[in-house]
Amino acid sequence: MSNNIEKKIRIFAPATVSNVGSGFDIMGFAIEGTGDTIEMELRNDSHFIIENNTGVVLPADPEENVITPVIRSLQKELGIDVGVNIKFISKIKPGSGIGSSAASSVAAAYGFNRLLGNPLIKSELIRYAMEGERLVSGADHADNIAPCMLGGFALIRSYRPLDIIEIPYPRSIFCTVVLPDLSIMTSVGRSVIQKSHSLRKTITQTGNAAGLVAGLIMGDFELIGRSMVDVIAEPKRKDMIPGFDDVRQAAMDAGALGCNISGSGPSVFALSKDSTTAREAGNAMVRIFKKNNLGCKLFLSPISNKGVSEI
Amino acid sequence: MSNNIEKKIRIFAPATVSNVGSGFDIMGFAIEGTGDTIEMELRNDSHFIIENNTGVVLPADPEENVITPVIRSLQKELGIDVGVNIKFISKIKPGSGIGSSAASSVAAAYGFNRLLGNPLIKSELIRYAMEGERLVSGADHADNIAPCMLGGFALIRSYRPLDIIEIPYPRSIFCTVVLPDLSIMTSVGRSVIQKSHSLRKTITQTGNAAGLVAGLIMGDFELIGRSMVDVIAEPKRKDMIPGFDDVRQAAMDAGALGCNISGSGPSVFALSKDSTTAREAGNAMVRIFKKNNLGCKLFLSPISNKGVSEI
Repeated sequence: MSNNIEKKIRIFAPATVSNVGSGFDIMGFAIEGTGDTIEMELRNDSHFIIENNTGVVLPADPEENVITPVIRSLQKELGIDVGVNIKFISKIKPGSGIGSSAASSVAAAYGFNRLLGNPLIKSELIRYAMEGERLVSGADHADNIAPCMLGGFALIRSYRPLDIIEIPYPRSIFCTVVLPDLSIMTSVGRSVIQKSHSLRKTITQTGNAAGLVAGLIMGDFELIGRSMVDVIAEPKRKDMIPGFDDVRQAAMDAGALGCNISGSGPSVFALSKDSTTAREAGNAMVRIFKKNNLGCKLFLSPISNKGVSEI
Repeated sequence: MSNNIEKKIRIFAPATVSNVGSGFDIMGFAIEGTGDTIEMELRNDSHFIIENNTGVVLPADPEENVITPVIRSLQKELGIDVGVNIKFISKIKPGSGIGSSAASSVAAAYGFNRLLGNPLIKSELIRYAMEGERLVSGADHADNIAPCMLGGFALIRSYRPLDIIEIPYPRSIFCTVVLPDLSIMTSVGRSVIQKSHSLRKTITQTGNAAGLVAGLIMGDFELIGRSMVDVIAEPKRKDMIPGFDDVRQAAMDAGALGCNISGSGPSVFALSKDSTTAREAGNAMVRIFKKNNLGCKLFLSPISNKGVSEI
């Protein structure tokens, strides 16, 4: 093993908002200011060690950490059994709804590939990072993984074959994310969703998903807002978030374009036409959560065009 | 009644391709070269007379003609009981899959409104023209009505409230429509579609619908083609069109971007990056229908930006 691949690197993978209203399982975007930071180094043996000093509780058994299936799938693909040390420096709390498992999976895939001299490109790494999502949610989904890897706003046009489209968006658009102090595990968030849907709901969802993408590309803020409607997941998931309807209304009253659950929750996000409105929406949303006796964290961010990177 | 509203006018309403693969009930576009032409004049009494000398068989009972509920709904909206004579000059054959009922409904709504001095604008007329579709299909759908009225490529983002988005498209894109010599009534075409769909199919349809709109706006021909996939209606409807899979394959082999059933069929359409490819695809599609002992009509057209108009 050459020296240049034994170095230690530090990787940052951003938090992401997925579903984005009408884009259940097919849309997501990256935000700034929060995410996972890990340090990685290759080992001279085949062992695989995860160290976590972040204070965020992760599974004690490495077999239950999303990083494990990600690294294993890459080892298999590349035909190598070189081991790796991974140390969490900062970690999004699992069950937040802003892509905690995706951030770890993407950071691990990107970092491992980088330590090995970049045999794969970012878009090729997406399918390996998705192994982490499969572990925690039981479903194959890329709506956090893709924007975490690539940055920007991602549309997963198709899963078989995997086809990720980078959607242009208006530069001024600003995101508010409010994370109340409770956890919803992704697997639970998925279990409440019905397994079949009426033709009418399918038509409504496709209309809104197409409208959202049209609004983003054309820079039509009103259309973006009108299209942020989820008739598939949100009606079932919102009961797990105390005061959700009021939080949403407060964001809209403050001028947000739209407001939905982020991922499977409990984070709630809004999109606004500028940062000032995003802040006002955020303050209004936090007030409602407080009325429901829920403390929360507030994040304000543009849609970030920066995906995972070495820092 | 003043003289200026007793004049006779002649209206042309274009044929339209709806569904467009992944846009079931939410997308459609106008084509050139075929459509309905009607003459209309107001009467001095409240009678309502339909004359048809086109050779295309229409219901003998005016109550079964799509024009009747359209005119009635406009009379009610405008609070008038003035009658009208309508004479069909040319008529798309019902059951073709290229918006026959929409063309008649739109022509009637547009012409009646024009004879009355344009109390409503085109976009307002859409909901009255939809009354014709309800009569023949039992469903409220605007995916032929909207592009027939407005021209271009229409996305019905929402039905309640009705929200029509005009989607930009690459100017060179060219359409092939092949109409085999058989009829599928819209009500039958709808009856074969399942009333509920798996979550997986809903996700697939939304991904493709969003991808199609993104491809059109961004001028990404390959994305347009990859997104022309319908997992809701086409798998059920294609069995009503002999040789459909082979027709589709012939279009793709000739270089078309994508090929789907137009509306509820039996017309089959393809989109191509230019008119030469569209013609080659059309010839290939016609050959396959002939092998299946079906004569057909071939139409070649850009996506037409011209909706209904006085001629």
